[in-house]
Amino acid sequence: MKKFLNKPETFVDEMLEGIIAAHPDKLTTVENDLRCIVKAGEKKKGKVGLATGGGSGHLPLFLGYVGDGILDGCSVGGVFQSPSSEQMLKVTKAIDSGAGVLYIYGNYGGDIMNFDLAAEMADMEDIYVESIVAADDVASAVKGEESKRRGVAGIFYVYKTAGAKADELAPIDEVKRVAEKAAANVRTMGVALSPCIVPEVGKPSFTLGDDEMEIGMGIHGEPGIHRGKLETADEVGSRMISAILEDLPFGKGDEVSVLVNGLGATPKEEMYIIYRKIDHMLKEKGISVFKVYIGEFATSMEMTGFSISLLKLDDELKQLLAKPANTPFFEQTQLTF
Amino acid sequence: MKKFLNKPETFVDEMLEGIIAAHPDKLTTVENDLRCIVKAGEKKKGKVGLATGGGSGHLPLFLGYVGDGILDGCSVGGVFQSPSSEQMLKVTKAIDSGAGVLYIYGNYGGDIMNFDLAAEMADMEDIYVESIVAADDVASAVKGEESKRRGVAGIFYVYKTAGAKADELAPIDEVKRVAEKAAANVRTMGVALSPCIVPEVGKPSFTLGDDEMEIGMGIHGEPGIHRGKLETADEVGSRMISAILEDLPFGKGDEVSVLVNGLGATPKEEMYIIYRKIDHMLKEKGISVFKVYIGEFATSMEMTGFSISLLKLDDELKQLLAKPANTPFFEQTQLTF
Repeated sequence: MKKFLNKPETFVDEMLEGIIAAHPDKLTTVENDLRCIVKAGEKKKGKVGLATGGGSGHLPLFLGYVGDGILDGCSVGGVFQSPSSEQMLKVTKAIDSGAGVLYIYGNYGGDIMNFDLAAEMADMEDIYVESIVAADDVASAVKGEESKRRGVAGIFYVYKTAGAKADELAPIDEVKRVAEKAAANVRTMGVALSPCIVPEVGKPSFTLGDDEMEIGMGIHGEPGIHRGKLETADEVGSRMISAILEDLPFGKGDEVSVLVNGLGATPKEEMYIIYRKIDHMLKEKGISVFKVYIGEFATSMEMTGFSISLLKLDDELKQLLAKPANTPFFEQTQLTF
Repeated sequence: MKKFLNKPETFVDEMLEGIIAAHPDKLTTVENDLRCIVKAGEKKKGKVGLATGGGSGHLPLFLGYVGDGILDGCSVGGVFQSPSSEQMLKVTKAIDSGAGVLYIYGNYGGDIMNFDLAAEMADMEDIYVESIVAADDVASAVKGEESKRRGVAGIFYVYKTAGAKADELAPIDEVKRVAEKAAANVRTMGVALSPCIVPEVGKPSFTLGDDEMEIGMGIHGEPGIHRGKLETADEVGSRMISAILEDLPFGKGDEVSVLVNGLGATPKEEMYIIYRKIDHMLKEKGISVFKVYIGEFATSMEMTGFSISLLKLDDELKQLLAKPANTPFFEQTQLTF
């Protein structure tokens, strides 16, 4: 295991100490619990609090989206492990300003159980909580069984649009409606070329041959839908974008935002070669592109691979996506159109 | 070679096509030459043009810093190869608005030769050109021989501060003075755990044992100053920061900006564990930190490793560093202090 770390068992907390030390003006802990991260500074009275949470090892997911114009707090689990309901509750109490709290998280068993429990505990403390589960990975369950799908990089769009809506001081049912709309209109597919190593495990979670790829693999190494010889960038991109387009479906006249997300070790150079193919295919289909994000938005530490997400826009989602946001991991000034 | 590409020989141009397709409102080519990238939109009359250039394979270096508040144009070479002087000249002519052009590039033989030739050709076309060479890698030559050092991630600070100064419509000698000051006050050191593969070569440029690291290795795999067993994050961080602090030297009462730059495959989690150690050591030395950048700023495709850069600030550099900038690869809103 070739990693820069001190001890596997201190990996997460030392990472969090580094994050708080690097960005003290932007992020802080709740009651000195490193696993409970919230926006530094005053709460905005009357603003719905947006919370997320999930396992470590996916930076900038999840805490990297806590900041101005997007999320208010995040509970942090061990590598690929759910945070506890107690940590979620601490974050909930810290970010509630009386307007309620919306949970936005990925569709994983441990997270669902703990967020549900946290919501019940919050209710007993008279904090109104609503939840949205992101399930954007088209490879993880067939059409018609969308609720079984895993949440992956597309959750970024749910955070971004719901965050912009909450920033307008919209009531919680309106913020939830936007989050639901974004979640319903985003589709993602990933491909992996090599695994990552969980520090406390010390060995790769799966193996792939020197000339193999796996399309549809999850961000924890969950099985995909096609394992085969590595193809050209155009062939891989074409397979993935075709599956995404068919699923929603996206079609002629639609306007989308595209996210090409690196899983950790894939160079930006290669992601742009993939985007070239995406651009050709969307033009062919008569689908226009409003905004392209290319970079690392939801990783699996040092995994090699990437995912493609498409968000179908309407006027409301476009206007919310365009709003500024500012976190230590993600900055966007107002987009014009 | 496990890469997402179509053909090694089209790697660079297809990447550039993808970049232009993804960011058509921000970047454009000169005379349809993909290797000549400039800011989209109108030139600002009376603004000194800032140009850089260098080999591909280092995204966001070099073209990723072309945008508002930073650079105006970039000539792009093959992977790890200098662009041609003709391409540099095309960019120079495209970005000159009558106030002259400042070249800022890294200290590599091919780049120096071609930028010098481009400057001579520009002179014949009555464009006033000045040059600054970044040479921030402390591992690449001993103190006293700074001019032999390679340019690495610290060039970001030269771009950022000179870019902000040019944006104030300062004359070229003033912009050059700022660039020289930043270049004189930045120091970098890197460490590698694994190599990258140049697509047209098809095999790694060096090998390192499964338990080995190399400190001081350059971004093209140039030899470092210490090869040995991989140590803990704290030990590696301590070695590197000590060498940097001694070199300038940095000392008690200084204020710095810190850049922890991923070389390609190193997860952000690990870079924050490293930053935790940097924070401890700077506090011990009585050095205060104004702004921390952690991410990928100058890569070597899929190389595993990172570098640390420190910029010693004075009031002028701090105020210029704090100014907003906006490129497809780097966004910063005004920093407050």
